[in-house]
Amino acid sequence: MNDHFESSDSVRSQAPLRHAKELLFEDPLHLQRGGALEGVRLVYETWGELSPERDNAIIVCHALSGDSHVTRHGPDDDPGWWEIMVGPGCPVDTERYFVICSNVIGGCRGSTGPDSIDPATGRPFGANFPSVTVGDMVEAQRRLVDHLGIDVVYAVIGGSLGGHQVLAWGAMHPDRVHSLIPMATSARLTSQAIAFDVVGRNAIHSDPDFAGGQYYDSERRPGVGLALARMLGHITYLSQESMTARFKPGLLPAQEMASEFERKFSVGSYLAHQGERFVERFDANSYSTLSMAMDLFDLGDDSSSLATTLATSGSRWLVVSFSSDWLFPPFQSREIVDALLVHHDRVTYCEVETDCGHDAFLLEDNFDVYGELVRGFLAPEPQAEARSRSGAESESESEKRQRTTRLVRERRIDYDHLLALVPSEASVLDLGCGNGELLHRLRGRGNERIMGVERSERAIVECAQRGIPVIHADLDAELGGFRDGEFDCVVLSQTLQAMGDVRRIVGEMLRVGRRGIVSFPNAAFHSNRRRLAEEGRVPESSILDEHQWYDAPPIRLFSILDFENFCESHELRILRRVFLDTSTRARIDEREANLMADLAIFVLSDGAGDLPAPKPKAL
Amino acid sequence: MNDHFESSDSVRSQAPLRHAKELLFEDPLHLQRGGALEGVRLVYETWGELSPERDNAIIVCHALSGDSHVTRHGPDDDPGWWEIMVGPGCPVDTERYFVICSNVIGGCRGSTGPDSIDPATGRPFGANFPSVTVGDMVEAQRRLVDHLGIDVVYAVIGGSLGGHQVLAWGAMHPDRVHSLIPMATSARLTSQAIAFDVVGRNAIHSDPDFAGGQYYDSERRPGVGLALARMLGHITYLSQESMTARFKPGLLPAQEMASEFERKFSVGSYLAHQGERFVERFDANSYSTLSMAMDLFDLGDDSSSLATTLATSGSRWLVVSFSSDWLFPPFQSREIVDALLVHHDRVTYCEVETDCGHDAFLLEDNFDVYGELVRGFLAPEPQAEARSRSGAESESESEKRQRTTRLVRERRIDYDHLLALVPSEASVLDLGCGNGELLHRLRGRGNERIMGVERSERAIVECAQRGIPVIHADLDAELGGFRDGEFDCVVLSQTLQAMGDVRRIVGEMLRVGRRGIVSFPNAAFHSNRRRLAEEGRVPESSILDEHQWYDAPPIRLFSILDFENFCESHELRILRRVFLDTSTRARIDEREANLMADLAIFVLSDGAGDLPAPKPKAL
Repeated sequence: MNDHFESSDSVRSQAPLRHAKELLFEDPLHLQRGGALEGVRLVYETWGELSPERDNAIIVCHALSGDSHVTRHGPDDDPGWWEIMVGPGCPVDTERYFVICSNVIGGCRGSTGPDSIDPATGRPFGANFPSVTVGDMVEAQRRLVDHLGIDVVYAVIGGSLGGHQVLAWGAMHPDRVHSLIPMATSARLTSQAIAFDVVGRNAIHSDPDFAGGQYYDSERRPGVGLALARMLGHITYLSQESMTARFKPGLLPAQEMASEFERKFSVGSYLAHQGERFVERFDANSYSTLSMAMDLFDLGDDSSSLATTLATSGSRWLVVSFSSDWLFPPFQSREIVDALLVHHDRVTYCEVETDCGHDAFLLEDNFDVYGELVRGFLAPEPQAEARSRSGAESESESEKRQRTTRLVRERRIDYDHLLALVPSEASVLDLGCGNGELLHRLRGRGNERIMGVERSERAIVECAQRGIPVIHADLDAELGGFRDGEFDCVVLSQTLQAMGDVRRIVGEMLRVGRRGIVSFPNAAFHSNRRRLAEEGRVPESSILDEHQWYDAPPIRLFSILDFENFCESHELRILRRVFLDTSTRARIDEREANLMADLAIFVLSDGAGDLPAPKPKAL
Repeated sequence: MNDHFESSDSVRSQAPLRHAKELLFEDPLHLQRGGALEGVRLVYETWGELSPERDNAIIVCHALSGDSHVTRHGPDDDPGWWEIMVGPGCPVDTERYFVICSNVIGGCRGSTGPDSIDPATGRPFGANFPSVTVGDMVEAQRRLVDHLGIDVVYAVIGGSLGGHQVLAWGAMHPDRVHSLIPMATSARLTSQAIAFDVVGRNAIHSDPDFAGGQYYDSERRPGVGLALARMLGHITYLSQESMTARFKPGLLPAQEMASEFERKFSVGSYLAHQGERFVERFDANSYSTLSMAMDLFDLGDDSSSLATTLATSGSRWLVVSFSSDWLFPPFQSREIVDALLVHHDRVTYCEVETDCGHDAFLLEDNFDVYGELVRGFLAPEPQAEARSRSGAESESESEKRQRTTRLVRERRIDYDHLLALVPSEASVLDLGCGNGELLHRLRGRGNERIMGVERSERAIVECAQRGIPVIHADLDAELGGFRDGEFDCVVLSQTLQAMGDVRRIVGEMLRVGRRGIVSFPNAAFHSNRRRLAEEGRVPESSILDEHQWYDAPPIRLFSILDFENFCESHELRILRRVFLDTSTRARIDEREANLMADLAIFVLSDGAGDLPAPKPKAL
């Protein structure tokens, strides 16, 4: 094992699958692309105990060259490929859940694949093995679940090709699964990713030793072609940054290599080495079959066609992408999320900031984020107190800067008033929801359909831990995934000041919500006026959240009157106004609000068909 | 020719080089990595006339599989590979310049390469062709220049491997070249790019028909290996976006393909087709030799080692990168720029925003930017009027938004005062220089060493057209490339309000400059005070540049007093103050400035060793 490397399709153990069980299908497996497989064998492993209620099963789906050995079965066992995620006390806790992982159909770790005997000929299938899809893999898993007597699986989780299987579960058997966690994956591959696969398969098939796929009787295997495909795969699993970090010249010891090129470049020597090791244990026909299954996977090429495919799903979803994953780029996960939003309200999405590329979902580097997301999502603690205080201690400088854009954050006395303005049966979207405190309080007093949008990764984790669905997004980008009028109320609580485009975000708020609720600090509060007029200095403290004018990001200052003028000129109807002096917690009368209130809350609707808002008064 | 495709190393014409001339070297070419080539033949083409002063020669350097046929020699000639850039009236104007392009040593278009006869054996070199470097290619070009009787080449330009040659000219022969234009290139390849090359060479060398490189006597050529390498190359030349745009399923007509995979995926069928065509005309040994030369190219792996390599260069530079080029990512060009900044002051850098990937430097898509940059850089018109008015008409929304962050831009009456504050012998860096108007005026009255930093692509083009060196950068990112105390004056003219981090940018200004000059609008100007105090509304017009509070980006408001307090608390020494009422153009006395001036200009130095600044007065 090479300790310089971990990869999304790297089987860490080459040992036989000692704890594997097998299921022989009595009925033929009819394949999505035609044909059928007779006498299918499905090899799998399990951990933990199925509960008496049979409601604690979690299926883990492996990636291209992974296998059923996710984690060890005991201290003497071989390590598995996802030990950080699955095991006692891990996010997928084998002391709590009954964990199942089967080897995919088409692979070469025991389940029926190209190296299996074709009953029709008595010889290995080889290149005659039929084209298998992700759907076929999931159908085999469904039969296993039936065999184990499980009606509804608690969760299905996996990354890369494993993530494709998760998505297929959601599309094919939404009634059989409670929660779905696709990671580092997509509804279909990019043209670029397909192109890499095509080159890899071309390398395999043009290797003279491939012999049309019937090399099992030969002493020679298409090792060169498979090694080339594998090398290419490795490059795509790493980000540019992680590749550079791992392959600094001189880092690896000199190795005996075939050519001067590989001696010169450590990355070449590394790849050649990895390629050889892989060739010894992986079947070229399986590699072709599984990479083809990935290329054929296609739930739709945009959010709307994808939404149709996933229309019947009513499950909870946690979608995780990784910022430097260029094989399955984050925008593809966001397309999945947008499609899910068309029908569902229980989606959490996080784009984990990382340099680790596609492999990130297997690595410890960002496990404090994506591992805790999975843990929280699988076992949320809705009554847990916010962890913002402890969380704040470890936040990065950039997060701190983000946080300070949300003013008076720790003194959210406006929440009480916001709660009073939201009917308890209303569905609510909180734009810039932070750690979900407002949504948590709304849910506590009865609002069932709640959702947040937030750009801080750490805040997303906290929301997941509390069981609050939240979408990781920059509010200055699009909110396209939300349908028109999808929520009764959309909240923009002390967030408008930092927005790049006020009209766009207010427009989006009133497109998605039937009502919009905006709170903001009043720049014309008397102390601000006095400070500027008498002292010649700009407002601080209450507006700038204890910061000086120079050490906070640029903030958009505006008064209650400015905002009312804005509403009037944009034909927005003001339904309610609440004005506060936060230092005394006193409610301020409308007639003196622009002077005496330091915080304002407006309830808006777009004025279409409504009476015009009352003319604002200068004060 | 496939009209769906253009590539950075695609020779568009397969015709023989009808207009090629050749030079036979009398002396052996001693190679950088050892050995020598005897009787070297260099095949080249020229366009235009060498001026009597012999000062108008431009060398164009071609990329991996390009050749000397850059553009046609007449209406009946075959098209060249860079017709948009080189020709009559083009940026590299063949009616003005004497243009030279030679086929690189090691290639297969006539110049000595692996298919040449090895004098020692009387047979083709094949795999015995020595390892050739970019430096060797440039040494051959230098001999050609000598042969043509040219002492100083006016410019050397090229992209990709051609860009490597440009950089090598700058490192090896700075006294022989006036201007250098490296595009879409780097001082060394990323580990990722090297890895792709290694896989490609592995594919070539493991093709049984490669026969150790001695296939010239055989009827079989290593076509499969070369095709695989070529397919891989294609993927890396395109961005994810451009690949998706070109290979939408169903776009290409069905073609006869070898396998079901290629029938299924148009991208596969396309690549297979391209691979075949390439194989017919390109020599596998040359491909290996040239890709190896790229991998071996190494001027240093960071800006400081690179700066050492380029230490003796005194040339003018235009460095161009392309935002979606992931093979030669923009950060690598920025490293080159930072290295050049250590020694030089005549560098212009632009990162062209594009979806076209590495190929962008050959395509029409962004030619209005990069073509005009080259044209302006080669033939600047220092006395031309600013084209901002016409330019503004075609600016994008995002550029418009950027522009509005620079307040009162069209009413830069502060320029007169800034000019008066800058000694005419001072070197000046203008942070946020826009179209270079201030620098233009400074140069016009005598300041020789001037430079700008700007983030608008269009403004960069205008600066290049005026011959003003400018670096494309976001001021909120690092200015690491500039040395401590490199400039006498650093100007931050009406830019501070939009900065994300005031302390950082002011610190950088005073690190790079011995003096800093800051101008900004005064938030405590009497009309702003009155508006807030009496009307309860935030400042508009003068501060917000005719925008409302909601339709400009968030702006940092501060008064003269706020700024003086900032300087005091940060121990910045205020050397001069100028206060203006821009509506009357009157100079305002210091004692009433915070009330009566709407614009302030401060000259600062860091207070180290200086007397403390006078205590600011409240007003």
